[in-house]
Amino acid sequence: MGFGLIDCQAGKLRALTYGVWRTNAAWRPERRLLSLFEEIEACIEAYRPEETAVEELFFNRNTTTAIAVGQARGVVLLAAARRELPVYEYTPLQVKQAVTGYGRADKQQIQFMTRAILALPETPKPDDAADALAIAVCHAHSRRTKQKTEDGK
Amino acid sequence: MGFGLIDCQAGKLRALTYGVWRTNAAWRPERRLLSLFEEIEACIEAYRPEETAVEELFFNRNTTTAIAVGQARGVVLLAAARRELPVYEYTPLQVKQAVTGYGRADKQQIQFMTRAILALPETPKPDDAADALAIAVCHAHSRRTKQKTEDGK
Repeated sequence: MGFGLIDCQAGKLRALTYGVWRTNAAWRPERRLLSLFEEIEACIEAYRPEETAVEELFFNRNTTTAIAVGQARGVVLLAAARRELPVYEYTPLQVKQAVTGYGRADKQQIQFMTRAILALPETPKPDDAADALAIAVCHAHSRRTKQKTEDGK
Repeated sequence: MGFGLIDCQAGKLRALTYGVWRTNAAWRPERRLLSLFEEIEACIEAYRPEETAVEELFFNRNTTTAIAVGQARGVVLLAAARRELPVYEYTPLQVKQAVTGYGRADKQQIQFMTRAILALPETPKPDDAADALAIAVCHAHSRRTKQKTEDGK
């Protein structure tokens, strides 16, 4: 699972850390979920983020994958809720538009703009980490216009 | 989400508690997941179960539902993993066969047998709670024959 933490001061965005949380595919699902949860908790503890942004998921076909991804997503949402971090969701289209200003941007264009906006010395790797940073940038660009849904408090 | 806790002493099964954990459908997903997680943790704390059995999920069509159910399932698996409870999974077919001895048993037959095996004064309600008890009975009947997968420890 990709992750990216950014700092937003006076409209200037900066990447604090990013990467992927990996678990052993040979482990049982509950052990992988526990490992993921502990990584997220450690990250929240270390960086004390104020808000969370996640991708809104769509699956057209593979429901087995949807359940597995849903399980991991549930752990992320739970970790955020336990720290009372508000959670915002963005579709891939919203991320594209917020980062590049263009809904049909391809992966390279999104990564190029993410790198430029965050002034990174190189393109973030792997793709899941780059995606996470793009979602964070999208949220930073959207948070003034998008009203937080207060019913979740 | 339905739940059921049973006690197995000298081959005799007894229901300790059962019911459903409900969350407000108007709440945001992360708040509902946190509520579910807290209910599960309180239940584990109160009853100190030694093992967990869950239904293996299949969805043929609705992937949006699959993600939502996967999220809730991820929280259940995480709660079990945090308490080092082994998790066993059973398909609906395995549950039917274990409880009624018949793979084409209908819901009424499964509920009738679950009630008889657990010597309950009435049929457990709602259906999700009855399903959970049936899965627990299935696990009690299967645990001597089904080898625990040790790779998850």
